[in-house]
Amino acid sequence: TFSALLAHGLAADETKQVALLDIDICGPSIPKMMGLEGEQVHQSGSGWSPVYVEENLGVMSVGFLLSSPDDAVIWRGPKKNGLIKQFLRDVDWGEVDYLIVDTPPGTSDEHLSIVQYLSATHIDGAVIVTTPQEVSLQDVRKEINFCRKVKLPIIGVVENMSGFVCPKCKNESQIFPPTTGGAEKMCQNLNVSLLGKVPLDPQIGKSCDRGQSFLAEAPESPATLSYRNIIQSESENHCANESPRFRALLQYAKGLNRLVLLCHK
Amino acid sequence: TFSALLAHGLAADETKQVALLDIDICGPSIPKMMGLEGEQVHQSGSGWSPVYVEENLGVMSVGFLLSSPDDAVIWRGPKKNGLIKQFLRDVDWGEVDYLIVDTPPGTSDEHLSIVQYLSATHIDGAVIVTTPQEVSLQDVRKEINFCRKVKLPIIGVVENMSGFVCPKCKNESQIFPPTTGGAEKMCQNLNVSLLGKVPLDPQIGKSCDRGQSFLAEAPESPATLSYRNIIQSESENHCANESPRFRALLQYAKGLNRLVLLCHK
Repeated sequence: TFSALLAHGLAADETKQVALLDIDICGPSIPKMMGLEGEQVHQSGSGWSPVYVEENLGVMSVGFLLSSPDDAVIWRGPKKNGLIKQFLRDVDWGEVDYLIVDTPPGTSDEHLSIVQYLSATHIDGAVIVTTPQEVSLQDVRKEINFCRKVKLPIIGVVENMSGFVCPKCKNESQIFPPTTGGAEKMCQNLNVSLLGKVPLDPQIGKSCDRGQSFLAEAPESPATLSYRNIIQSESENHCANESPRFRALLQYAKGLNRLVLLCHK
Repeated sequence: TFSALLAHGLAADETKQVALLDIDICGPSIPKMMGLEGEQVHQSGSGWSPVYVEENLGVMSVGFLLSSPDDAVIWRGPKKNGLIKQFLRDVDWGEVDYLIVDTPPGTSDEHLSIVQYLSATHIDGAVIVTTPQEVSLQDVRKEINFCRKVKLPIIGVVENMSGFVCPKCKNESQIFPPTTGGAEKMCQNLNVSLLGKVPLDPQIGKSCDRGQSFLAEAPESPATLSYRNIIQSESENHCANESPRFRALLQYAKGLNRLVLLCHK
């Protein structure tokens, strides 16, 4: 969800070209969340074309290669890695300002491959998304360790599902209780930025299922305000430097301009 | 969560021996949820020993092989598959009535390997866990397709996070709205059993984080009643047949007696 909203948020600036790449090969949810279900990739002289949500927002996912959205992609690591390489090498992304990569959870093939294939480029870093319970934070600590081992900068952590306000009585419940202090305490302990805490809002799930941007559909929701703050600080921090930080054009991604964000789910 | 509760539920019958195997190599959460964090595997003459929660409930996870619970296991598919094979071949499980396998989401290495390594045995089938939104159901349909392709029977689907009752005003909110009819409609369409719907209860997350069985800690919760119904029908359906349906002892799993359940998260 976060990658999709980040892509929408960054593409609100029409002068920027945004690419969203879904490398969750066995569970691609980006086509659905971007309202692109049933779309197919087109082949052109310069490679595969991404599917465009807006003129400045192109998307690529294995979902566009399946004949039905329910088809299972039953692939072991090497085949997944091959497709990720194709997504970088054979897709005509055009000149892009931001490449956002949506990864599955974990620290395995997809994560190692994307970092390896993009090693010649400038990766701004990883955004890691969590929920407040210790069971989730434990996975996030592993992902933070992964980033440190492969020398991938960590932009920060987003805590989703931080509390729910009853629409009837306005009482707030911690549905996923932060028994060990939540992402806040973990970030302090590990010296990582906490980008924000986003409360639960049933509208988020509805918007995702409809393929609409939650930010546009529920502009007044506290969750939207929280997401907007995170996205704005992202774009400020990573666009302040006007001179492209990355010129050594990557061997695989043609025309990739400046910025790569990796979002762990 | 479901695998952990199912293990506790089945082990409540002291005449049954239950084994819980966590094959989520990059994100093992079973040690935490079973209250076994910090435990290490012991080597004996007959192989690795599982870690026991109760006399009749043994657990194995990559988590018991790590020096810290925050260590990342940065492995591609083949190494993960090798460890899964070791878990089946080199662990002295003893005589077990139930082997419950907790898998990560997806349809990749871990899933293919466990089905392949257990192909000589009798696998009762897969229990697939979902939440009510279409974005999750889409992944579940892929997992159902996976099961059908590899000829793994599907025991049924459990829907978690079905509604939340505000503790203050008792108003029920659909926090993860079933925009396409939830698991119920999907199961009808695909001719799969819906084993049950479990409402959200903040106590579930708390119990998991503390490593306690939610079923024992919150015996009166509607979520507990729902889980208990599911577990009871499992054990009835899969134990009614008193003569072991499986005798050709598997090449890898020593002493595995009768029943294997696979739980997708």
